[in-house]
Amino acid sequence: MAVCEGKTFKFGNASITSFASVVGKIESEGPYGDEFDEVVEDNKGGAETWEQAEAMLQTKALQHAMDKAELIPENMDLIFAGDLLNQCTGSSYGLKDFYIPFLGIYGACSTFAEALLLSASMVNAGYVDNCAAVTSSHFSSAERQFRFPLNYGGVRTPTAQWTATASGAAIVAAATEPPYIRAATVGKVQDMGINDLNNMGAAMAGAAYDTLSRHFKHMGTHPESYDLIITGDLGQVGSDLLYDLFKRDGVDIKKWHNDCGLLLYDRESQDVHAGGSGCGCSASMMCGHFLKRVKSGELKRILYAATGALMSPTMVQQGGTIPGISHAVEICYQ
Amino acid sequence: MAVCEGKTFKFGNASITSFASVVGKIESEGPYGDEFDEVVEDNKGGAETWEQAEAMLQTKALQHAMDKAELIPENMDLIFAGDLLNQCTGSSYGLKDFYIPFLGIYGACSTFAEALLLSASMVNAGYVDNCAAVTSSHFSSAERQFRFPLNYGGVRTPTAQWTATASGAAIVAAATEPPYIRAATVGKVQDMGINDLNNMGAAMAGAAYDTLSRHFKHMGTHPESYDLIITGDLGQVGSDLLYDLFKRDGVDIKKWHNDCGLLLYDRESQDVHAGGSGCGCSASMMCGHFLKRVKSGELKRILYAATGALMSPTMVQQGGTIPGISHAVEICYQ
Repeated sequence: MAVCEGKTFKFGNASITSFASVVGKIESEGPYGDEFDEVVEDNKGGAETWEQAEAMLQTKALQHAMDKAELIPENMDLIFAGDLLNQCTGSSYGLKDFYIPFLGIYGACSTFAEALLLSASMVNAGYVDNCAAVTSSHFSSAERQFRFPLNYGGVRTPTAQWTATASGAAIVAAATEPPYIRAATVGKVQDMGINDLNNMGAAMAGAAYDTLSRHFKHMGTHPESYDLIITGDLGQVGSDLLYDLFKRDGVDIKKWHNDCGLLLYDRESQDVHAGGSGCGCSASMMCGHFLKRVKSGELKRILYAATGALMSPTMVQQGGTIPGISHAVEICYQ
Repeated sequence: MAVCEGKTFKFGNASITSFASVVGKIESEGPYGDEFDEVVEDNKGGAETWEQAEAMLQTKALQHAMDKAELIPENMDLIFAGDLLNQCTGSSYGLKDFYIPFLGIYGACSTFAEALLLSASMVNAGYVDNCAAVTSSHFSSAERQFRFPLNYGGVRTPTAQWTATASGAAIVAAATEPPYIRAATVGKVQDMGINDLNNMGAAMAGAAYDTLSRHFKHMGTHPESYDLIITGDLGQVGSDLLYDLFKRDGVDIKKWHNDCGLLLYDRESQDVHAGGSGCGCSASMMCGHFLKRVKSGELKRILYAATGALMSPTMVQQGGTIPGISHAVEICYQ
């Protein structure tokens, strides 16, 4: 069977005019802790449950992003949002009180890239004047939903990743200021046959390889065309696999590569095993750290390839595998 | 607070070039039973589990739609897909073997309208040549996930709706043939304070009212501008509430209104209480019945407002309410 190539979308008129991030206490103690807009010190941040706390992270992140751009809800046109909770309730509950037109999306930890690429698509085409991309994750709500009740005190395996308690929000508009979203490539669902709930990195590496390869090909670029290629969140296991996959093509990606899951925490002093993960991990690293560097010109051209493990406890219990997906978004100073 | 109006998107270049539907046995025994492309007689259709059976419905629906348009995966550019299963696995597992770029979406039972409006947006803007919209639901996988294990034999309340075992797939392209997608309005998350897992219609009626009202206003239309206004899936309870909400504005919508949840089954002879629901309900009614009538010119202009209850058992157990959402898509013969 010949392979479907898909398209790489090009944008001449999409800029990230505002962005903000909110993280939990552990994330604030990591190497980029002072770059986030707000830290929720307590695991529940005043909410009654972890799920409600996660919804609150999105409320806060979008509010910060709107405040920075001096936008109020009646001037907003659209939101793309998603999270890891069943029925994506972090987004629907967290953002409902803004009363802004809302499109829910699901791409597991790749969701922030999906939100950015769809926001850029809608703004660039002129359907809306502005569009917000918002995602979140929460360690405690994710652990109990996907793995074990936290009280059970299960031992985490070395390949396990730590779901970030974090949210990121970016507002895309047709402005003439960096960071610009210049191009995007939509991922395909890739199944590498992984069925270990504690080895998400391996499930996602093939998807990142496929999407990045197609993006390079369609854009006529290669790893050295970028200041940085940022995945989120392969962790250590998945990053090593990604290098191996590119090596087979004679491509060295390692020198230009960084992974949000390996950045958010200090893996020496913080016990996060193979690194961070969750829809909020790369969203907070992008909105807390990287977008600032592109805005200032310190980074001229980055390729952000968020990766998601489309993992379902039900499917895994039924003997199914964990497919992965990765979407790539090219963000530039010019 | 002034209210966010949002935009109604207009499309000059988006046509539904192919569509197909696959349903279960009970759906095939309803009033439109002979209009669907394939009937899966057994609840599992040869799959080992209900969840795998639901994924298979999507595989079959997209394959039928592609076959009718003589398309193979390498000629497809993009899929928007979603379903009711946690982590939207009906879509990711059901469509992964096509290897087509994939964007997962979540809007509960409103998902097919979300998929259609995003497909039209991407095709009309020229990002892709074609785009598939695919959704599904399955009675058994939904009941055990959202309500009770089926073996428990819980008594269903009169307001309960029956989740359809069904899938619909539509391919949107820039062709010059009907049905055309001419406009779309994105819904806002609306919370009417409902917290009864068995009264989804009430949770969604306010969302449908808000989206339809904005669509009429932005388009300069009213109910009688359309041959039909088709909601999916308010059921009887939600439809009556919708009439009441419009009546307050002096608008009679009842004469032009029909609801996919009230059409899919024969409520006299089939024990579905307040009507059908699920991402597959309005998807199969659109792809099995209505789009054919627009294609032939029998219906000249319809407004399809799918409605979703963003219902989370976790949130409801925590005392939360069930927000609703509704997206409207205007489909025309000319």
